[in-house]
Amino acid sequence: MATVNKNFLKLNGGYLFPEIARRTKAWQERHPGVSIMRLGIGNTTEALSPAVCAAMKQKIDKLSSRETYSGYGDEQGDTYLRDALVTYYKEHWKVELRNTEFFISDGAKSDAANIQQLFGEDAVVAVQDPSYPVYVDSNVIAGRTGSYDETDFCYQGFVYLKSDLSNGFVPAPPKEKVDLIYLCSPNNPTGAVASREQLKVFVDYALANKSVIIFDSAYSEYITESKYPHSIFEIEGSRKCAIELSSFSKFAGFTGVRLGWTIIPHELECEGTEEGMLNRMWNRRQCTFFNGASNIAQAGGAASLSGEGYKECRALVGYYQRNAKVIKEGLESVGLSCYGGINSPYVWAQTPSGLTSWEFFDLLLDKCHVVVTPGSGFGPSGEHYVRVSSYGHFEDVVSAMESIRRNLVI
Amino acid sequence: MATVNKNFLKLNGGYLFPEIARRTKAWQERHPGVSIMRLGIGNTTEALSPAVCAAMKQKIDKLSSRETYSGYGDEQGDTYLRDALVTYYKEHWKVELRNTEFFISDGAKSDAANIQQLFGEDAVVAVQDPSYPVYVDSNVIAGRTGSYDETDFCYQGFVYLKSDLSNGFVPAPPKEKVDLIYLCSPNNPTGAVASREQLKVFVDYALANKSVIIFDSAYSEYITESKYPHSIFEIEGSRKCAIELSSFSKFAGFTGVRLGWTIIPHELECEGTEEGMLNRMWNRRQCTFFNGASNIAQAGGAASLSGEGYKECRALVGYYQRNAKVIKEGLESVGLSCYGGINSPYVWAQTPSGLTSWEFFDLLLDKCHVVVTPGSGFGPSGEHYVRVSSYGHFEDVVSAMESIRRNLVI
Repeated sequence: MATVNKNFLKLNGGYLFPEIARRTKAWQERHPGVSIMRLGIGNTTEALSPAVCAAMKQKIDKLSSRETYSGYGDEQGDTYLRDALVTYYKEHWKVELRNTEFFISDGAKSDAANIQQLFGEDAVVAVQDPSYPVYVDSNVIAGRTGSYDETDFCYQGFVYLKSDLSNGFVPAPPKEKVDLIYLCSPNNPTGAVASREQLKVFVDYALANKSVIIFDSAYSEYITESKYPHSIFEIEGSRKCAIELSSFSKFAGFTGVRLGWTIIPHELECEGTEEGMLNRMWNRRQCTFFNGASNIAQAGGAASLSGEGYKECRALVGYYQRNAKVIKEGLESVGLSCYGGINSPYVWAQTPSGLTSWEFFDLLLDKCHVVVTPGSGFGPSGEHYVRVSSYGHFEDVVSAMESIRRNLVI
Repeated sequence: MATVNKNFLKLNGGYLFPEIARRTKAWQERHPGVSIMRLGIGNTTEALSPAVCAAMKQKIDKLSSRETYSGYGDEQGDTYLRDALVTYYKEHWKVELRNTEFFISDGAKSDAANIQQLFGEDAVVAVQDPSYPVYVDSNVIAGRTGSYDETDFCYQGFVYLKSDLSNGFVPAPPKEKVDLIYLCSPNNPTGAVASREQLKVFVDYALANKSVIIFDSAYSEYITESKYPHSIFEIEGSRKCAIELSSFSKFAGFTGVRLGWTIIPHELECEGTEEGMLNRMWNRRQCTFFNGASNIAQAGGAASLSGEGYKECRALVGYYQRNAKVIKEGLESVGLSCYGGINSPYVWAQTPSGLTSWEFFDLLLDKCHVVVTPGSGFGPSGEHYVRVSSYGHFEDVVSAMESIRRNLVI
């Protein structure tokens, strides 16, 4: 008599983005012909780099000839791509890593959700609040929480690191001992970026408490102020206590092509483990639950990391950064308080007049035909904020801001 | 103080195929310049279909223009591909399914490993013995077994359905009640295919005991005898008790391109669930742990299902089927007892003179320079067998058989 994994039943509501899609679709059906401007989901809109496309087509040409065809790649990813990432980290961020510390995946979302599988069922998990819902939901499904509390919008047993105006949206480590800490910098959704000093405090905490930091650097290419670290491995001591997840999605426009990576240093330690064990466990996990990322995507990913491909992808990032500037200026011009948007593709805007996130979502959709993401979908401290994404055509972003200027009555 | 998921420590040895790669590499290093013929891993070797390549390049062209670029696809897979699969099942196997019952993934291996996440931690799991190691290992990591027993090569708590000569390598359902039953037909590794009547007995068992059958049909296109079912959903009653996993890997040569699918009927039931709940839970799981399969791979997958693409992929299957015939005849000509290979790309050969699987693996590598897969890697009943894969160039398969004829002294 099969039973279901009851942890699924604890999940509060649907996954955020499908819910936004549902509401938007319903509104569109009630208003046929009205053009909606979508600044909700962080979904890339601009063409892929020509050099990246050429590399992927070349890979297909290889697959179309028996002399150059290849089947299964390594579960860890192709060596040439892992080597290219080693070079990328070394040249850009002065971080020395070995190719055996990289694991290529079909995207950072999968890794962000799966990484918790390495750890004990009773691990106490801390997340920035607000944060990317996948960190929380994957641990709920894995059984590391009690039920969802409808009064404080928190899962029991989770430690929420409140990120708000008082700390510039970058929290300090918790007072209590926790086992796993998810950090994302530049942050999704707040757009805040952690300084070296702030990350050092987390690393020191993790070393002192034998915790593991899971650091999501998917937006690191959006940092414009060079004083900020791009990788947790720029911080001394981090090789003993941190994992980094990252992605080609927002840098190379691979949201649909799918490619990401995870770094597990050989020195990463955990209670009772011998040297290198977490790296080996993740290797075993990937060999069992995964069969390598698409070889075509991997060819494109490597092309994005150097030469023309890198320049073209940097230009893509620059395109969205310009959008972010337009959004920040546009929202501020109507009197909204905005954060982020400088080292991040996301602008984090406070709702006016005490509106809830979803109320402001509905208002912006209804009056301005602009879709944003309700901040409350990222955790309780996201309430009274919305996330505005710079992923869109420049002219649509401009139109959206014009519509907000014209139609938003605060 | 983070601790590790201790279930990983229960795993017996490395994952099978990396271990074969390790031994083969070590042998090659001791014998530089000697050419090894690889019939071990089921890794496709022939060029992709031209129509499939054209479709994937066309997709890249779309991604290279902002007018036709697309980012995130649906986590469930693109609708056009799910529709193409609906048509494929209807036209080829007379099976009626809805597109909301299909979930496109990066491959059947991921789904085969992840599907157990839907079920209770205390689920009793039955597997065919021998079977694809992922079914067992994923449930070990999820904590559904006791420790590995070195005396009988079984994990405690698992139910092994012995598949041997006495039942033609297709077992009957267990005497005891189990919750989850993994079935693979055509079978990896034995090459045996289950009849309608044999599957009906499993479906009746599952309905009577409220168990769920996880049916892996990754090799269904290799069935040559039309009396055999290609899908569990050809069996009456299966929509209430079965999930099907399948793949483009062995049909379209997508081992490296990565694409698969899972079918969860809306009627699938489980203890205490309401109608459609397992389908919705998997949807939620995919929306949390996955971000859709590569859009380039999906374009290729759709092209493989109809028109020229389908014909070309059928020709690919025919190529490997001819190899299987050569292998079966070759091995039988030296006196080995062989099974499978008619409705399957795998030939299951009994080791001579009571050799263990690994002893025969080493002998074939050392004397004949042929790599096969030790049957014992698939479970205790695989001992004294090896799996010989038809995935290789025809001329290499012929050479391998000549080498065995010439050099194997039994």
